[in-house]
Amino acid sequence: MHIGTMISSHLHVEGNLNEALVRAIEEANACAAICRICADACLGELMVADLVQSIRLDLDCADVCAATSIIGARRTGSNEAVIKRMLEVCAETCAACATECDQHAEMHEHCRICAEACRRCTDACLQAAGTITPKD
Amino acid sequence: MHIGTMISSHLHVEGNLNEALVRAIEEANACAAICRICADACLGELMVADLVQSIRLDLDCADVCAATSIIGARRTGSNEAVIKRMLEVCAETCAACATECDQHAEMHEHCRICAEACRRCTDACLQAAGTITPKD
Amino acid sequence: MHIGTMISSHLHVEGNLNEALVRAIEEANACAAICRICADACLGELMVADLVQSIRLDLDCADVCAATSIIGARRTGSNEAVIKRMLEVCAETCAACATECDQHAEMHEHCRICAEACRRCTDACLQAAGTITPKD
Amino acid sequence: MHIGTMISSHLHVEGNLNEALVRAIEEANACAAICRICADACLGELMVADLVQSIRLDLDCADVCAATSIIGARRTGSNEAVIKRMLEVCAETCAACATECDQHAEMHEHCRICAEACRRCTDACLQAAGTITPKD
Repeated sequence: MHIGTMISSHLHVEGNLNEALVRAIEEANACAAICRICADACLGELMVADLVQSIRLDLDCADVCAATSIIGARRTGSNEAVIKRMLEVCAETCAACATECDQHAEMHEHCRICAEACRRCTDACLQAAGTITPKD
Repeated sequence: MHIGTMISSHLHVEGNLNEALVRAIEEANACAAICRICADACLGELMVADLVQSIRLDLDCADVCAATSIIGARRTGSNEAVIKRMLEVCAETCAACATECDQHAEMHEHCRICAEACRRCTDACLQAAGTITPKD
Repeated sequence: MHIGTMISSHLHVEGNLNEALVRAIEEANACAAICRICADACLGELMVADLVQSIRLDLDCADVCAATSIIGARRTGSNEAVIKRMLEVCAETCAACATECDQHAEMHEHCRICAEACRRCTDACLQAAGTITPKD
Repeated sequence: MHIGTMISSHLHVEGNLNEALVRAIEEANACAAICRICADACLGELMVADLVQSIRLDLDCADVCAATSIIGARRTGSNEAVIKRMLEVCAETCAACATECDQHAEMHEHCRICAEACRRCTDACLQAAGTITPKD
């Protein structure tokens, strides 16, 4: 995607691109899509009853990741407190989903890929959150 | 809406409905819709350039409210930590949006209604967050 | 909610409120929330394996309803063709979900309520679509 | 992203991956993100009043693309009619957004990139729609 290029073309941003935030936006966007597909793939497994908690955490994670990705990309100057908080909640949500999906990773390839995406997203969100110091 | 009735019909919930959470889910759902319309109504004003920050905060608020409403309604037993955190971020985001929309409330009826919805949502989210004690 | 009031306060709308569209926006918003809770309640049933198709149609329906509600509320003058098309897709999606949920309505109260919400939304969307004649 | 890999790991899909649909899912996901950033970048321009229609079409396009991408990735066997219809609406919405953004492409790099993403998404959605023949 052209997330970095797009954000660079923004008048309020030019020459001051937060690379860590761009990475978090991209990872959260990817993680949202992957979590939704993992939820649906879990629904397709014969042992779906064993995967209910995975499906729910996948869907929670997808919703938080999608919101984080969208809010992180909006240049709401005075809303940095919200961006930082969302990045932190996103990191936490992805960590919970990764822990659950890890338990099914040997059985289900989609859970393995999903857990990895969640961990990448956790890392990216924590790094991005660390770069933001909201003004009082 | 039938949010309360729907959640009551849920096998994992029966006889244990969190009324404060139901109210937060409903307020957040309504606030998301109102913020989006406020953003669009601001775009329709002649003085749109003065309303840019309102529009952005409206859109941020809509995205956080929508995610909070959806996640709050999902009975993800072990994900209470995420629900509580989202409720807190939602309260904070709505408060920021209310402060901005208040400044335009005399000029624009949609900003006045939006600020009120944001304050109701802040209250409901804080009350609901207070009822949730995540297990370690 | 104050959807009607909010839209009436919009400069591009004043004195020209499409009541059928407002009702469709409200029904689609409610239906999205109800379908998501139905999906989650289905996940909580012992016989979850029998409800996989319900869960998927619920989630599809929620996604289409949410998008329809948001797009219908945006006063994008020249985009009436898209609003009309979304209303039609939404009516069709809700009808498919209602048919599936009806099959489980006797067993599961959430499926019964969901099927009703879907039918109300189908009706409202078709009526609203009938009031819109896109310019060429 | 790993959209293709994820979908391939799905029990209901294995060995029968619709490459055109995968491409549409990816383009719609990217287009949604790009349209949202374009809307926000337009809000940051001095001449924001000239860009109101762009902003609205960007937001409509983002909402339709996001829903299309999510629904397209869900393996709702019997819901192919809805996927096909959403792909068609998505192609139409993207085309409308591209036409508007093209008018500002010389002035604003973000509108140029956005128009291109919309055109790629239109093409991908039409190709994917062509591969789907819903059962009666």
